Amino acid sequence: MNFPKSRDEIARDVLALLPRLRERFGDRLSTSGAVREQHGHGEGVPDSAPPDAVVFALNNEDVAFVARACFDAQVPMIPFGTGTSLEGHVVAVHGGVCVDLSRMNAILEVDADALDCRVQAGVTREELNAYVRAQGLFFPIDPGANASLGGMASTRASGTAAVRYGTMSDAVLGLTVVTADGRTVRTGTRARKSAAGLDLTRLFVGSEGILGFITEVQLRLWGLPEMVQAAVCQFPDLESAISVVIGALQIGVPVARIELLDEVQMDACKRYSKLDEFEAMPTLFIEFHGSPAAVREQVATMQSLAEESGGSGFAWAERPEDRTRLWKARHECYHANLALRPGSALIGTDACVPISNFVACVMETREDVRASGLTAPLVGHAGDGNFHLGIVFDPASPDERARADGLAERVSMRAIRYGGTCTGEHGIGLHRIHQLAAEHAEGVALMRALKDALDPRGIMNPGKMLPEVH
Amino acid sequence: MNFPKSRDEIARDVLALLPRLRERFGDRLSTSGAVREQHGHGEGVPDSAPPDAVVFALNNEDVAFVARACFDAQVPMIPFGTGTSLEGHVVAVHGGVCVDLSRMNAILEVDADALDCRVQAGVTREELNAYVRAQGLFFPIDPGANASLGGMASTRASGTAAVRYGTMSDAVLGLTVVTADGRTVRTGTRARKSAAGLDLTRLFVGSEGILGFITEVQLRLWGLPEMVQAAVCQFPDLESAISVVIGALQIGVPVARIELLDEVQMDACKRYSKLDEFEAMPTLFIEFHGSPAAVREQVATMQSLAEESGGSGFAWAERPEDRTRLWKARHECYHANLALRPGSALIGTDACVPISNFVACVMETREDVRASGLTAPLVGHAGDGNFHLGIVFDPASPDERARADGLAERVSMRAIRYGGTCTGEHGIGLHRIHQLAAEHAEGVALMRALKDALDPRGIMNPGKMLPEVH
Repeated sequence: MNFPKSRDEIARDVLALLPRLRERFGDRLSTSGAVREQHGHGEGVPDSAPPDAVVFALNNEDVAFVARACFDAQVPMIPFGTGTSLEGHVVAVHGGVCVDLSRMNAILEVDADALDCRVQAGVTREELNAYVRAQGLFFPIDPGANASLGGMASTRASGTAAVRYGTMSDAVLGLTVVTADGRTVRTGTRARKSAAGLDLTRLFVGSEGILGFITEVQLRLWGLPEMVQAAVCQFPDLESAISVVIGALQIGVPVARIELLDEVQMDACKRYSKLDEFEAMPTLFIEFHGSPAAVREQVATMQSLAEESGGSGFAWAERPEDRTRLWKARHECYHANLALRPGSALIGTDACVPISNFVACVMETREDVRASGLTAPLVGHAGDGNFHLGIVFDPASPDERARADGLAERVSMRAIRYGGTCTGEHGIGLHRIHQLAAEHAEGVALMRALKDALDPRGIMNPGKMLPEVH
Repeated sequence: MNFPKSRDEIARDVLALLPRLRERFGDRLSTSGAVREQHGHGEGVPDSAPPDAVVFALNNEDVAFVARACFDAQVPMIPFGTGTSLEGHVVAVHGGVCVDLSRMNAILEVDADALDCRVQAGVTREELNAYVRAQGLFFPIDPGANASLGGMASTRASGTAAVRYGTMSDAVLGLTVVTADGRTVRTGTRARKSAAGLDLTRLFVGSEGILGFITEVQLRLWGLPEMVQAAVCQFPDLESAISVVIGALQIGVPVARIELLDEVQMDACKRYSKLDEFEAMPTLFIEFHGSPAAVREQVATMQSLAEESGGSGFAWAERPEDRTRLWKARHECYHANLALRPGSALIGTDACVPISNFVACVMETREDVRASGLTAPLVGHAGDGNFHLGIVFDPASPDERARADGLAERVSMRAIRYGGTCTGEHGIGLHRIHQLAAEHAEGVALMRALKDALDPRGIMNPGKMLPEVH
């Protein structure tokens, strides 16, 4: 990794900026070791590098002020939301100033008739859902973590409900962006569609902080479904479970969620989340949304598909508390996997492939896991062709780490070979930079040109996504 | 408009390029007046400026060859599909070389299991639909014109079925792009979602040829719905018709199409397309897709909404030929409007606003039409908050043209004021450049920076979308 200045020079430059920052931010500027440490890492693989200072922004002007100061001094800036990235997005590899947006947590506007809202970047998805629920609305994009909506936009997050409601790329109507040099720009409009100019909104969605700050997000909302039902179905083998998913997609059954867990993952979930009523077998967690008649029809179709594939009868989670328990277990997979082996760490993979290649990619991957001798439960947003391994390894063992990295690498390359992507929803961050090059070849040069155009001094979250120039 | 060279200089430079081009293209290179003239305009407002030469490309390498030649000579290039743009996208305002992609009409791959396909840019949507129909698939994005899929991607087209199936922004999984300097780049993957790097695909979708050539398109496909029903419902006034649309969106009825025609438009359609069974009244054309049970439920909901709003009973078009006749009439609006007055021309508007502002924006616009003294039927993709006026004017009357332009301008500005966009689906092209500036303010500077990064010599479709630098 390179940057025109060394880490020491940057630390010195930040020191010189502090008076200017302190004047505006007062005690919303911190250089304490604990605060810097806390902002130096996300979740996932234990990379960590603290920024030299952290500012807590309250509004666009705060962010623009920091940007102008850092632009003048050519100091790196790292946007920070809730710190739930698994891919090292917030690690301050060159030091610099971390801009914490979590206090930008105002819900600015909700229009129930238009089914849209505008929020500051630090609002979390659960905060938004709690707020709009009384108006009969919800925001369905659900990556598991209670991430900030700005962070979710920055990483093009999706999660369990993407099969029905899409990803952040679909849900974001517009953004407020602060550029590297401190300009504040509104992208998009409140219209559902637009052919007006280059799509700045979708360029910034998924840009991982390397083009500028996302400070406000205009989002689509959905009416709460009249009826919600969740079901669990278990299968003798993984292929049978996947064949049900493919069947559902072929017929176009509008399932709201359809999650695949292999027997290793179900075993971990049973232990960690006390799902005692289920076996450690390949399993689908399914959720249906719609009118009673529509849900009835979807359920009947799915049941007959499951039956044809040798699935168990549906175990129902009709009461909200049962559903919550089920999806909580799904969201706890990460911690359930860590708990498989005390003191372990996890590397997550994020392959996403065309659904016609899903079985082949998953089965080859499972063979690869077996050959590696590692424990790696598999869970997937099967309807999107997206699956994760949680590769358990001992961080104190360089050999295990190397084997885990090797396995993760092979999964990504396999996904690319099958016409898919090395990351369906987690992003590139620090860990997939050379995989991006494998996936996009010449496209990386175009991305670099775009980055240089919007961030000519290279100060926005340097070291992430794109290979640094050597 | 400016370009570093005059039109004469460019003509001279193209002349100098001809031997190099002729060697590769032979009789697929034309400088005949008729061919140049035919490639100098689209549909819609009668702007026209012929390119200095037209080449007919067969593959990526052909396009890259032309690009390298024109890049070296700094000569403008204009991508050309079917020439059905309404906004002057193909007008060769500076001259240069038009690259006609219509012979790039191979369907490269269809994967029925993955519900996707890859086509060359010149394949039209009707050609694709004819091809995949036998596999039980269809491609729903339907702008009316039988446009090329590359052109539809370039203008972020949508049309009547966007309310259910989205726009080209949603339907395109990836692209092959040839850059201004002749590099061939694949964007995206076949995966349904990806968080891998900057979203080049969605940057090129809607880029109107100013960033490079779209030469191949990877598209989502959908399974043919089990059942299709179309209905017509007429209303005493426009507000009542719109209230049915809003009601449907609120409840989340997944209508496949819901088109609004005002009484002036219905009158024009009755005359031109012989829709004798209907009155010249505000009207909704609705289409339902789904299983028989799902369609039954949607129909019942829509009927009760229509009844509450004083709508007529549903007139059914259940047989395919009746449906075809109905949608043909809808697609013929443009010609129906021209036929209202022999020798007239049309200016189309393309406002798209949040649905909660749709009634206000439409009613103010109708008042504006009345005050203008012009004839301007209104038709809209009501489910998207998108409506068009077809402003009829006498091209021989500067006064009428000025009044028509003024009305169109006010409609765009009104849409922006209501939180929407001046163009939902037609694009900026030649005609909305200053409206883009009104809509996106500082965003236009970012678009310019992106354009300069990918097209440093300014040769890709110059004079379109972005204000030229003075």
